[in-house]
Amino acid sequence: MGYFRPEIEAIAGYKPGEQPQGGKFIKLNTNENPYPASPKVAEAIRQRLDQGLEKYPDPVGTAFRIRAAEVLGVEPDWILCGNGSDDILTILTRGFVGDGEWLRLPTPSYILYKTLAEIQGADSEEIPFNEDWTLPESFGTASNHLKLAFLPNPNSPSGTVVPKSQLREIADSLPCPLLIDEAYADFADDNCIDLVKENEKIMLSRTLSKSYALAGLRFGFLVAQPQMIEQLTKVKDSYNCDALSLAGALAAIDDQKWVAENKAKVVVTRANMTQRLRKMGFTVPDSQANFVWATRPGVKLKPIYEFLKQNHVLIRYMQYPGITEGIRISVGTDGQTDVCLDLIEQYLQQNS
Amino acid sequence: MGYFRPEIEAIAGYKPGEQPQGGKFIKLNTNENPYPASPKVAEAIRQRLDQGLEKYPDPVGTAFRIRAAEVLGVEPDWILCGNGSDDILTILTRGFVGDGEWLRLPTPSYILYKTLAEIQGADSEEIPFNEDWTLPESFGTASNHLKLAFLPNPNSPSGTVVPKSQLREIADSLPCPLLIDEAYADFADDNCIDLVKENEKIMLSRTLSKSYALAGLRFGFLVAQPQMIEQLTKVKDSYNCDALSLAGALAAIDDQKWVAENKAKVVVTRANMTQRLRKMGFTVPDSQANFVWATRPGVKLKPIYEFLKQNHVLIRYMQYPGITEGIRISVGTDGQTDVCLDLIEQYLQQNS
Repeated sequence: MGYFRPEIEAIAGYKPGEQPQGGKFIKLNTNENPYPASPKVAEAIRQRLDQGLEKYPDPVGTAFRIRAAEVLGVEPDWILCGNGSDDILTILTRGFVGDGEWLRLPTPSYILYKTLAEIQGADSEEIPFNEDWTLPESFGTASNHLKLAFLPNPNSPSGTVVPKSQLREIADSLPCPLLIDEAYADFADDNCIDLVKENEKIMLSRTLSKSYALAGLRFGFLVAQPQMIEQLTKVKDSYNCDALSLAGALAAIDDQKWVAENKAKVVVTRANMTQRLRKMGFTVPDSQANFVWATRPGVKLKPIYEFLKQNHVLIRYMQYPGITEGIRISVGTDGQTDVCLDLIEQYLQQNS
Repeated sequence: MGYFRPEIEAIAGYKPGEQPQGGKFIKLNTNENPYPASPKVAEAIRQRLDQGLEKYPDPVGTAFRIRAAEVLGVEPDWILCGNGSDDILTILTRGFVGDGEWLRLPTPSYILYKTLAEIQGADSEEIPFNEDWTLPESFGTASNHLKLAFLPNPNSPSGTVVPKSQLREIADSLPCPLLIDEAYADFADDNCIDLVKENEKIMLSRTLSKSYALAGLRFGFLVAQPQMIEQLTKVKDSYNCDALSLAGALAAIDDQKWVAENKAKVVVTRANMTQRLRKMGFTVPDSQANFVWATRPGVKLKPIYEFLKQNHVLIRYMQYPGITEGIRISVGTDGQTDVCLDLIEQYLQQNS
């Protein structure tokens, strides 16, 4: 048509994982939490709903910021609320990276990062992980056009983490801000909140979609020093978070007991899944997230994904041409993961 | 700091109208609906809430699109769901307008349009309305760098409309798409859905914030030909609308009886407000929206806003340097508008 920016017509666009709306699937493909959220979330949303929705919400989510700051050990003006952490990543890309400038990301990682660069008319510079999922030092190399780096930690699809000492070095050597995407950090042994306090270039994004079981609510947030938050607030839509999700998010972050109990369950199931998949012959790195990544050179993996789908189990088959292919399985309930792993075992027996 | 795009550090950012979160204000400053939404909305949200929020929502809002298409007389693929119509305006700006290109808008109108251009690194070309709020023909002038035009209809702050015949001519002569922002169209005598069918360059944005009394829910949508929707879908965040707002929006659009009854009430109060303000000596154009715009050369208007605020009534004082200044008062309940207009009368008597 010629009306659009050429970048837009040229790209394929980000395709999110399958989200069947109905039908009875065991859904282990987009790293949702298999357990329902804290009951306090629905209670808070019901109470907010009773107050009516005819007024605009608080544009900056003051109540959430106050409570989240207490939980994280920062001040409220270190927090920016987003309509999911995708909104946060979009705001960051628009805030830092101009037309023709560079956004750095590791690969394989979250495919959205590259799409965000494309939409912005920016160049994405992909730094491949080493084969053992360690990050090469070159991720920290300075470069004139580089304006932002995205680094998921734990990473997807691998579930692995980059050590904090290396993150510190990377941030020091980078000429630009480093966004550590902590979507899965609540399932890990450690997080990087303390690094944000050390260096204004280090920022963290968090989401309630995974560790709070609230993917349907769309709520994420950024933790960064106040002078960064102040500028980024100009980029976001004024009312990017609705009244119900603000109320639900406040109740969710307030219930850290629920988060800890949920993590404990996920971690046990994750260990069992890892062990069982390894016994079947898969290579599975130790995961710090709520999913496991399984590879197996010599065995075609896409048919496993298809076999599972026929049997109403959704997992993610991921192919990174020239690098690797594998299946990523979200941690479900013990019952769900048993069904999934039994089917994989059955498939392997029938096809060996 | 130097980390941000220079455009971002340079701008002031869009400042939304005051949103006191607590305190007892009669709020007539941001064109919210004074009546609670259809009770079917809260019912639908409660039902959706009972199903749990741990899964991602439908990324494209299929159920809403199907029902909205029936209501509007188009097909579902003519509709794009947004996290408020601000999200739609952001998506459009990012989709059509590149660095250094032009976005055209009338002035005085919605101040956000200019902010969106600024964030995008684009130039905004402001075409002043004539003094009687008619739009000069020059709004349709072709120009090489022009990539998008925003035209609110009814306009804010005036509440006036541009005739459909002129909109058709403007779209024909423009080299780029024309977004008709119909945030207030449900309060008007007519709308432009039929123009979208005639010309792929004409697109409409709608919001549930005003005529559906759901500003707290954040839901808006675009109506455009499918080939436009397809490209714009690549620009939006994957899950830009949450599960609860999708459920609420579906129930809201389904209840057209509520919309018609609400409009009937608003239109009567609007006529009374217009008449009373004119009697007090204000100039008030006939409004097709849920607010009225009052000017009065020779009388300082900001002190009226301040006097009302002291008395717990919020209205909007707006100043367009070199063009005009005035007060914009949202249509409240009859009781609320009586309080507001009584106070204005009292102020004028005390200060004449």
